[in-house]
Amino acid sequence: MKESAPHSIDPELVFKAWEKIKGHVHHTPVLTSSLFNKRIGARVFFKAENLQRTGSYKIRGATHAILSLSEKDRKKGVVTHSSGNFAQALSRAAGNFGIPAYIVMPTNAPRIKREAVKLYGGKITDCEPTLEARESAAFKIKEETGATFVHPSNDLQVILGQGSAAVEFIHKVLDLNCLVAPVGGGGLLAGTALAASFLSPTCEVIGAEPFEVDDAYRSLQSGRIETNKTTNTIADGLRTQLGDVSFPIIKKHVSRIIRVEEQEIKDAMRWVWERMKIIIEPSSAVAVAAVLREPYYFEGKKVGILISGGNTDVGQPVFL
Amino acid sequence: MKESAPHSIDPELVFKAWEKIKGHVHHTPVLTSSLFNKRIGARVFFKAENLQRTGSYKIRGATHAILSLSEKDRKKGVVTHSSGNFAQALSRAAGNFGIPAYIVMPTNAPRIKREAVKLYGGKITDCEPTLEARESAAFKIKEETGATFVHPSNDLQVILGQGSAAVEFIHKVLDLNCLVAPVGGGGLLAGTALAASFLSPTCEVIGAEPFEVDDAYRSLQSGRIETNKTTNTIADGLRTQLGDVSFPIIKKHVSRIIRVEEQEIKDAMRWVWERMKIIIEPSSAVAVAAVLREPYYFEGKKVGILISGGNTDVGQPVFL
Repeated sequence: MKESAPHSIDPELVFKAWEKIKGHVHHTPVLTSSLFNKRIGARVFFKAENLQRTGSYKIRGATHAILSLSEKDRKKGVVTHSSGNFAQALSRAAGNFGIPAYIVMPTNAPRIKREAVKLYGGKITDCEPTLEARESAAFKIKEETGATFVHPSNDLQVILGQGSAAVEFIHKVLDLNCLVAPVGGGGLLAGTALAASFLSPTCEVIGAEPFEVDDAYRSLQSGRIETNKTTNTIADGLRTQLGDVSFPIIKKHVSRIIRVEEQEIKDAMRWVWERMKIIIEPSSAVAVAAVLREPYYFEGKKVGILISGGNTDVGQPVFL
Repeated sequence: MKESAPHSIDPELVFKAWEKIKGHVHHTPVLTSSLFNKRIGARVFFKAENLQRTGSYKIRGATHAILSLSEKDRKKGVVTHSSGNFAQALSRAAGNFGIPAYIVMPTNAPRIKREAVKLYGGKITDCEPTLEARESAAFKIKEETGATFVHPSNDLQVILGQGSAAVEFIHKVLDLNCLVAPVGGGGLLAGTALAASFLSPTCEVIGAEPFEVDDAYRSLQSGRIETNKTTNTIADGLRTQLGDVSFPIIKKHVSRIIRVEEQEIKDAMRWVWERMKIIIEPSSAVAVAAVLREPYYFEGKKVGILISGGNTDVGQPVFL
């Protein structure tokens, strides 16, 4: 039996993960906006993981995955394939421990993300922009170097690390009625769900995703992992789909998924930039848009929103 | 003798001001960036007053000015002339106490600032965009309504309120070697200087301003209040000059002013947006640019930077 089976996961592990990694990551602030509260008629709290090291929560999972390796395996390094935030996060986390991070990146990855990976000391291997090419390049590196492959979301140690954001959030804001997190690969949502189920069992956990890539919504409906035929969303971090580790956790602990339109994502993103003075990426705006879309659902409640990251082009914001 | 004379100001007043206003303002987070630290070779801390209510530190001084009024005077409201952050701050602070705020705004004030003032409940009076027109319009309102005039920077109660940001900063980060704040009208810098002199006397206080409007630099050189002939800087919050209340405090407690070029302001602003994921306005970028301009001066030190605000056009950033 795989360790991914939901009944085998002790939710307390997410608390232990937080204890392990807390010295390696920022304890990010929780922000509020009275204007936002007025719009929703609720008390809404934003956990600003865009202010986390490397600009997203992903360093939490990357750090925890590395800390979970044996001393011997750790020295050989880690490998992943990613064109996004996890590439930066794993590079930086590996750098903190003085071990190599091998990053397989498709040749069409944005220049700015490539530069960030280099800045953090990641060793980039180029590959064609297909999943097959990415996986085979990563496998080859693993064989040659003995490095451990770390999946950006479908990995229990990664999920437990991501959940540490919710651990801090729940500790900071008592009695949250619900937690809203964006869902792509499901690492953040699954980790958040585990944290809530352990530390705040009455807190409802809600996912947020674009209509354009609503695989998580459909997966919860059908009871099995669904895929996206197209990925026409500006929320570049959510173009992936759930995996066999993240899905069972989400199925067990997440009550619902709210879907949002592309224009709602843009509007929410601009609103947060303008009013709250923080740079959030489109994937984070999805969670904000979900709350704005259903104010009647959240009215009168104490709501927590996980702001997942802020890695986006600040000179040409996608909301324009 | 005016209460503005420097030897008459008890620096402890800034601590008392913090105690009075702390329930009315955000206790803003202090952020760090390991990339920034690496660039300077120092430990640098950013007090994020851009995340303050109304998007700038100005609500601190506005709140303190209102709290310093007698019950009777307070009811009659407050009046100011401002096209910038203080207009929003005073409107919002007055709204918190349920009293009117009369805001004289030049007809050429940006639409977004005008809307923000309305949103916070300020009563706008239009006037021609000259200092004379602004002052006479404000005086007329004062006569008609009995409202108390509150100057955006050259007012001791305002200055004491602004200093509360440094009170929190020093409390959060012990043993700062220096504090860097932008200087325009001098309210923030003077308040910061009073706070440091009381709570952390070994902490050097440094001002930062654009070469284009270097009146504070020249004033410290000449020993009297100098003016700017032109105001060709993107740092719109710093186009004003010191006053007879702010200058004596700055003269007594501020060791030096670092001047920066316009391009340095733009570069610093973009860097903070991109790397630290917060929206800062050009005036705040001036303080960041000052530290970037003289890394040798700050090397090895524990440096605090006051990020004053984040009210700027997010769709068309001025650094482009």
